[in-house]
Amino acid sequence: MEVNYPNGKRFERKLSPKKTTVKHKKDESYGNRGMTLEEYLNETNEFYRERKIAVIHKKPTPIQIVQVDYPKRSAAVIKEAYFKQASTTDYNGVYKGKYIDFEAKETKSPTSFPLKNFHQHQISHLKEVMALGGICFVILMFTNEDEVYFLEAKHLLVFWDRMVNGGRKSITKEEIEQNGHIIPLGFQPRIDYIKILETLNLC
Amino acid sequence: MEVNYPNGKRFERKLSPKKTTVKHKKDESYGNRGMTLEEYLNETNEFYRERKIAVIHKKPTPIQIVQVDYPKRSAAVIKEAYFKQASTTDYNGVYKGKYIDFEAKETKSPTSFPLKNFHQHQISHLKEVMALGGICFVILMFTNEDEVYFLEAKHLLVFWDRMVNGGRKSITKEEIEQNGHIIPLGFQPRIDYIKILETLNLC
Repeated sequence: MEVNYPNGKRFERKLSPKKTTVKHKKDESYGNRGMTLEEYLNETNEFYRERKIAVIHKKPTPIQIVQVDYPKRSAAVIKEAYFKQASTTDYNGVYKGKYIDFEAKETKSPTSFPLKNFHQHQISHLKEVMALGGICFVILMFTNEDEVYFLEAKHLLVFWDRMVNGGRKSITKEEIEQNGHIIPLGFQPRIDYIKILETLNLC
Repeated sequence: MEVNYPNGKRFERKLSPKKTTVKHKKDESYGNRGMTLEEYLNETNEFYRERKIAVIHKKPTPIQIVQVDYPKRSAAVIKEAYFKQASTTDYNGVYKGKYIDFEAKETKSPTSFPLKNFHQHQISHLKEVMALGGICFVILMFTNEDEVYFLEAKHLLVFWDRMVNGGRKSITKEEIEQNGHIIPLGFQPRIDYIKILETLNLC
């Protein structure tokens, strides 16, 4: 049975947005209150959904369930389960009738974005979706600077192929600046990636 | 914490398609080998994906994780978790660049389809997606007869509203025949719902 930690990271229990902000210590002068990229995107997607701009959801983490107990008069309890590796990207949904698909990743590195943040099957998934006319991109966050970039999947694929062919295992910050688009952190929405889609005439 | 059995059903461990077919005893004269609707759709989606027709995936079941163990030198084990109710439908993806979104449900009833198979938030989700130009429908299976129907979400909403306004809590088989489209069970693909999209000029 294939089991994995998602991204090789330890699982951290998230009870509420308030609680999780505690664990994230960063320079708060950027006004971000130490939110994670996932929290930013949850808020952003909720903003889009409420205003009927787009409906984008994060997919649940896939779990391999092995044992479940059914106590009388209370909810089923999963007693043994394992994390599975996702076969798709984390986010998808609809904007103007079009299919939107993206992955969002953070790095602590200030100078480059390590490609090990992505998996081969996610790359394959992006290729498949692009071939069918879906709109594919990644959202990359440099957590040290709280800088967020939008990078079309077609560019990611070039850097991925470079790695597969023996080249560097990361995308330099400069390459991201050249090929991607910075998304300024805002309040409502937090990370306005739909605006980038509009600017680029992708929809 | 809100916890639920998915659809109020007991969880059944699925190790392999072969194993799960055992539990499903039906008239096999239809040549279906007793597969569940989910298995039919998994095979169908795999068929579409391999032939680059469409990329549609089933979303993982959402789980609320409470406790995880990290044994040395082996994978993280989830020791306590609960089923959460999904806030969207189960299936979505891309066909001809368009966003496709659907829910698939079975009933043992031969004469009508109980609306309790759906949840209010799934109905709300379908409405939101339709408003943004997404293509929304449900796939309904009468398991006794192995009959599968395609019903556009706009029709489902009419029957849902009838129930909310005090009317019957199910859709009669006749209403499904009138408003929906039968999908003949096939071999490759098993349930060719994309063909219905084409016939109806929805894409």
